[in-house]
Amino acid sequence: MKSLLITAITSVALITSSCMENKSGNKATELQTIFPIGEKGPAENFTGNAWNIGLVANDTTYNTVVGNVYFVPGARSNWHTHPAGQILIITDGEGYHQIKGQARQTIKKGDVVKCPPNVLHWHGASPDTGMQQIYILPKTEKGIVKWLQKVTDEEYNINK
Amino acid sequence: MKSLLITAITSVALITSSCMENKSGNKATELQTIFPIGEKGPAENFTGNAWNIGLVANDTTYNTVVGNVYFVPGARSNWHTHPAGQILIITDGEGYHQIKGQARQTIKKGDVVKCPPNVLHWHGASPDTGMQQIYILPKTEKGIVKWLQKVTDEEYNINK
Repeated sequence: MKSLLITAITSVALITSSCMENKSGNKATELQTIFPIGEKGPAENFTGNAWNIGLVANDTTYNTVVGNVYFVPGARSNWHTHPAGQILIITDGEGYHQIKGQARQTIKKGDVVKCPPNVLHWHGASPDTGMQQIYILPKTEKGIVKWLQKVTDEEYNINK
Repeated sequence: MKSLLITAITSVALITSSCMENKSGNKATELQTIFPIGEKGPAENFTGNAWNIGLVANDTTYNTVVGNVYFVPGARSNWHTHPAGQILIITDGEGYHQIKGQARQTIKKGDVVKCPPNVLHWHGASPDTGMQQIYILPKTEKGIVKWLQKVTDEEYNINK
């Protein structure tokens, strides 16, 4: 029954809320989790603890990758680009998004963020509140992601 | 600042949970809403009350449409097809999805459903529990949706 592909990400809601500690020992605000938290994002691409689970794998039918990330307070991605851009749906909590050369934006539950193709940007949680996001990568035939340098504490903390 | 397009779907969470009545007067289970419920889906395309809000409008950069639907208990879409398929992310509640000629599937919070291109299908809430879903339509250069006949009560109620 390949034509109906239901990916039972979780047959029982294993986790209905999360309370995780960041590297400073601060506890995350309890977020309403929809999916299992998945795997910890690798230290070479993230600062602090960001948990990622893939929801839709790449294929030639949809050419779309979808996943979910929980950023623990203080956690953020490296600077990175996507060759065909990225759409973020913030489903809980509060965090930041910044495009290189622009002011850091505060984003929160219910916001939708578009990151244009090949534009250098990062996103992550606020210092005191975690952030949950669904990410959508369209047109994957153009590629997925190019990871770059870390977001320094100065970049993270200063809204310039 | 067009390169950073933050669509503030809601600057304050206007609705943190919903409790709506379907046409039979049954109350929906309280769902954890992420977005405003939006506009009622037109009666020619839906049975019962389904509320839709667009999150990402079509454009030539992403060629992707994203939105959110709350199906009140008993509410469902008509049979329909998408020329490039559809991805559903179930974010709360419980409902059904069916591809023509196959058994009706129960879907719930945390599930991901792929509806292949040009395959006749419908989706909606269960009789007693509402369902919240994010829908993703990729490759919109191929088209969006073709609406067809209503899902009868017999089709809705019988899991054959």
